[in-house]
Amino acid sequence: MRAAARSAEIPEIEADESPVEAAMVDLGARARGAARTLALASAETKDRALRAMAAAIRAREAEILAANAADVADARAAGVAGSFLDRLTLDPKRVAAMASAIEEIAALDDPVGKVTEEWTRPNGLVMQRARTPLGVIGVIYESRPNVTADAGALCLKAGNAVILRGGSDSFRSTAAIHGALVAGLEEAGLPPAAIQIVPTRDRRAVGLMLAGLDGAIDVIVPRGGKSLVARVQNEARVPVFAHLDGIVHLYVHAAADLAMAKTLAVNAKMRRTGVCGAAETLLVDRAVVDTHLKPVVEALIAAGCAIRGDAETCGRVPEATPATEEDWRTEYLDAIIAVKVVDGLDDAIHHIERYGSHHTDAIVTEDEAAARRFLAEVDSAIVLWNASTQFADGGEFGFGGEIGIATGRMHARGPVGVEQLTSFNYRVRGTGQTRP
Amino acid sequence: MRAAARSAEIPEIEADESPVEAAMVDLGARARGAARTLALASAETKDRALRAMAAAIRAREAEILAANAADVADARAAGVAGSFLDRLTLDPKRVAAMASAIEEIAALDDPVGKVTEEWTRPNGLVMQRARTPLGVIGVIYESRPNVTADAGALCLKAGNAVILRGGSDSFRSTAAIHGALVAGLEEAGLPPAAIQIVPTRDRRAVGLMLAGLDGAIDVIVPRGGKSLVARVQNEARVPVFAHLDGIVHLYVHAAADLAMAKTLAVNAKMRRTGVCGAAETLLVDRAVVDTHLKPVVEALIAAGCAIRGDAETCGRVPEATPATEEDWRTEYLDAIIAVKVVDGLDDAIHHIERYGSHHTDAIVTEDEAAARRFLAEVDSAIVLWNASTQFADGGEFGFGGEIGIATGRMHARGPVGVEQLTSFNYRVRGTGQTRP
Repeated sequence: MRAAARSAEIPEIEADESPVEAAMVDLGARARGAARTLALASAETKDRALRAMAAAIRAREAEILAANAADVADARAAGVAGSFLDRLTLDPKRVAAMASAIEEIAALDDPVGKVTEEWTRPNGLVMQRARTPLGVIGVIYESRPNVTADAGALCLKAGNAVILRGGSDSFRSTAAIHGALVAGLEEAGLPPAAIQIVPTRDRRAVGLMLAGLDGAIDVIVPRGGKSLVARVQNEARVPVFAHLDGIVHLYVHAAADLAMAKTLAVNAKMRRTGVCGAAETLLVDRAVVDTHLKPVVEALIAAGCAIRGDAETCGRVPEATPATEEDWRTEYLDAIIAVKVVDGLDDAIHHIERYGSHHTDAIVTEDEAAARRFLAEVDSAIVLWNASTQFADGGEFGFGGEIGIATGRMHARGPVGVEQLTSFNYRVRGTGQTRP
Repeated sequence: MRAAARSAEIPEIEADESPVEAAMVDLGARARGAARTLALASAETKDRALRAMAAAIRAREAEILAANAADVADARAAGVAGSFLDRLTLDPKRVAAMASAIEEIAALDDPVGKVTEEWTRPNGLVMQRARTPLGVIGVIYESRPNVTADAGALCLKAGNAVILRGGSDSFRSTAAIHGALVAGLEEAGLPPAAIQIVPTRDRRAVGLMLAGLDGAIDVIVPRGGKSLVARVQNEARVPVFAHLDGIVHLYVHAAADLAMAKTLAVNAKMRRTGVCGAAETLLVDRAVVDTHLKPVVEALIAAGCAIRGDAETCGRVPEATPATEEDWRTEYLDAIIAVKVVDGLDDAIHHIERYGSHHTDAIVTEDEAAARRFLAEVDSAIVLWNASTQFADGGEFGFGGEIGIATGRMHARGPVGVEQLTSFNYRVRGTGQTRP
């Protein structure tokens, strides 16, 4: 254990004092106990807690920033650099944004108890399908302190208990934010165990969470880089909501409007290159290779993007470097795009199914029939027609926040917002019906 | 390998000729390949295949009955008895029922591509949530030949490939029915690998399916007794749709109509005692213990039911024998019911949450407020008010058949019909929108 952590006033478990296993199982049991109370909590109570959390985050700004400064200083001393340090660092604006995000979640409709379908049977039974909480959610993330607030608030809104395990470099920031969340829970009379953080930097805690804490965890949500997600997907013994890759395609169809294709390609790739909805491969239909390929690719180059092209592309665009087979499977998360000429809609769909990651894919076309086929046949969580792939985001979908984007086909798919953090049951009203 | 199986004309893999592992992985790969074709198959094509399957089952009645007779003879020779033998045995009526059940599935609306939600964002993006197939489903069941037809047809309707592994005692029956299903697929031009049976009695095949066949199986559905379901739930490395127990409660509330309580108790327990929706515990509110307990329990006794009562019940009903703690956790699946007096609604809900299996639970009451609380607070897949628990069935819900009932909270819950055998994705239509 590092000296820096020892000096912080956090109730941290010492690996040599108490077994991590016992502490984690206890954490799980407390979460399971709190889940039942949360499931029955009214919308008013949950929203009161959320608003109190936001207020507590604002009131504790100095404390949160001080804890964060200590984390950042340690990370700098350890030689951590660039985007990692940027994601770790909080400032007054980011603290305010965390509080506002929680208030936005409070303002959402309560998903719990919402009737999503209702029908009446010939025998007079009235059947409803209604949302219920999932139970206990485990969130494993890297050193982005704001995830503590986002994930805690989203899980609470959906009536779930949550166990949060943030990156070890943000340990003190996470604990300070968590303190504000617990204050909000207590103000509304909800159990503090509704939102818990793993009280140790010990990495064994992650393995224990992935094993499900003796059945206490119903689903795991990893948020972070590919190595974290891969580990969670490979090792978890409970369901996982996640995506490993965002190998996102933009397909310029034979009937694409050229101006729109240029605009969408630049936005899909270059608006932010580090997000999972950023385009990684541009497919251009052979039918418009003479008219569309060069202008679209040059617009990308003008925006600062490097091009990895197939032979056709390299023959037309001198700035392009040859793509290898590996490029079609690469999520650059950078100002680089792979460009390939395809032989029509079927070939485009085939390429996407072969190389894609079932995350987000888009077609640019004025041909409605082609668009309908693309939307129906590309088996990705999000498929778009004449829109930027960067809309792959729960906020942009109107979900009021997301805990991540899932590419699995079980339960949650696409942006995981409060509704995807619920289950459902059937509620049947009769007048004494018996089954013949 | 048994001599009896050797004599049947089934392409069975010999354990000593070809490794089961390789054959199963190959089976999985073929299913995955077929899944993509099925996902794109039109409703018309799938329904044509289903109707052709029903016709083929009728046309092959003699062949199916002969295969079944051989299975039944072997089972009898092995000393198999009672309900097991009954479930294994086919007759012309049961063969006809299999064919009709497939035609009913053909008549259902196609779930694939169905838009379940649509909304427009302020930026003009039109968002749809639409159903998509799940992929490849593995069904592991005991020696009930009709499951072959039911499960195959339901999975096909939802656009999924399926791998069926029936009980080894019904091996030849399953193969004969499967032959008819494949004939239907071929008549509609669909790949035979859409519905495959495990071509060996070798029990290692089950373990391989539970491991997911190298990622080829997306979900496993076990159908059978508790030991089968327990094994699948414990060993599966892929999601499972199942229920282990149906510890079903009927709660006679303080405001229950006595006549309705008697009728519902008798139907919930005695209509069929061997189904998962059969009541196993009767809870009677202390407020009506003088008026309701004895009449309801006597109605059950008159219907042939044995009573395991708490002290209060045994004091009032001489025929009752004392219940032990174990009785509250027992799924009798027989003409036996546990009876307990509870101290009001909260105590009833508490008992159900403590001892129940989150399957199906019902309240009898004329008090709407109490019923609403029961429906909202009992965390079971199906909760009923003034209706028999024996309605826990996909057909009774209007789902047109079910592959089973699930008590997990992930993806499918309650009766698993064609809609629960689908996933979904988001389809976004724009007019060139870029994300700011």
